[in-house]
Amino acid sequence: MEKLPHEDLIYLADTARVPYGNRAPEEIIEINREILPFLIKEGAKLIVMACGTSSAIAYPVLKDEYPVHIISLIEAGARAAENATRSGRIGLIATAATVNSGAYPQAIKGQVFSAACPLFVPLIEGGFVDSDETRKVAKEYLKPLLKEDIDTLILGCTHYPHLANLIKEIVGNNVTLVDPAEEVVLDIKKMLKKAGTLKAANTPGKCEYFVTGSPLQFVEVGSRLLGRPIPHAKQIALA
Amino acid sequence: MEKLPHEDLIYLADTARVPYGNRAPEEIIEINREILPFLIKEGAKLIVMACGTSSAIAYPVLKDEYPVHIISLIEAGARAAENATRSGRIGLIATAATVNSGAYPQAIKGQVFSAACPLFVPLIEGGFVDSDETRKVAKEYLKPLLKEDIDTLILGCTHYPHLANLIKEIVGNNVTLVDPAEEVVLDIKKMLKKAGTLKAANTPGKCEYFVTGSPLQFVEVGSRLLGRPIPHAKQIALA
Repeated sequence: MEKLPHEDLIYLADTARVPYGNRAPEEIIEINREILPFLIKEGAKLIVMACGTSSAIAYPVLKDEYPVHIISLIEAGARAAENATRSGRIGLIATAATVNSGAYPQAIKGQVFSAACPLFVPLIEGGFVDSDETRKVAKEYLKPLLKEDIDTLILGCTHYPHLANLIKEIVGNNVTLVDPAEEVVLDIKKMLKKAGTLKAANTPGKCEYFVTGSPLQFVEVGSRLLGRPIPHAKQIALA
Repeated sequence: MEKLPHEDLIYLADTARVPYGNRAPEEIIEINREILPFLIKEGAKLIVMACGTSSAIAYPVLKDEYPVHIISLIEAGARAAENATRSGRIGLIATAATVNSGAYPQAIKGQVFSAACPLFVPLIEGGFVDSDETRKVAKEYLKPLLKEDIDTLILGCTHYPHLANLIKEIVGNNVTLVDPAEEVVLDIKKMLKKAGTLKAANTPGKCEYFVTGSPLQFVEVGSRLLGRPIPHAKQIALA
């Protein structure tokens, strides 16, 4: 919305099943097999798998199975980390499923030190973004990575950038935080420019929100995390 | 048109620059960088790089650079050949550029024996589909492959299926001919079904033809090769 303000967005939050991070790979793939046709039928021309866990596990299996170009966060995140590091010692915090998939180490030239952070998503969704509990948990999660003398840290789950300030306090100024989503958006802008289909500045983008769980709860939590009001979300059932 | 009769097609024939098969890889990539934005701006939702040479050389470079899913002939052709062969000895006839790219041997489990057939495209375009000259040339091209005891032969240039009968006469019934385009169309049908966007049987598909060279010549040669009349082709300039 910030970087591509004139594009139309179709946003699906699978709130009934979040978090994905402790689910089995087969289940994560099956969930994505339900989501992708929904987005395509709603008119999505380009799909960002804007979930680190889906990107790590479902993307490699599904990327060529649909008639729409699908974009994963991993390649962009790996590239951003490679560009940011000087020492080649890169930290990764992500869900257990993403860490176990090995997707980031496979995509990155350099050493990757990983830590699963299973409590982060529930803490963020629960509103504990700037709390002492979260700070304590974060210190525990980050300790082994800091021991490895990393100079770059990938926020490998799309929830984690909401903790960027708190994480920055803990890791200090010598560690560069990488948000794969920032790089993905730049990639998409380049693609749209190259294709000549980047929307002109005079057409404002629309955003439609779909959820699988409670629309009210999504509107509340979503507006807080997004930092601007979400007027409406439509509840849908995925088949 | 046969297998997906209800889908709309946008067909671009770069007749001003055909054949691609003896051009340098850089040039083939540049040409595709002109073609892809044209098709996307015309509304293409899914793009088949329906040229063996472009698939072998431009696809690996460009596949992730555009906001539309692009499909190459190589993966599908390789898979079809792997499924067809019993001995694992696969022949490939294609343009010089495709043979030199090594795209098929890289994609195929099994031994690939390749022959460049630079005269086939001009012979086909010139109307010599069932002529003694073409039969003579084909025998020369195929001789070294037959010596290698292949049991499968990939028609690695999208023009070559027009010579299928003549080639079949030469290689005999023990060699299975593989047309990658057939497999690609099956893949696309699967994708559209999976996404739920395969067109219903009551909507007839439209086909728009664009050419970079003479529309009259295209309409004449194209109708003959397609086996049904092409009513109209629009000449365009690629930038």
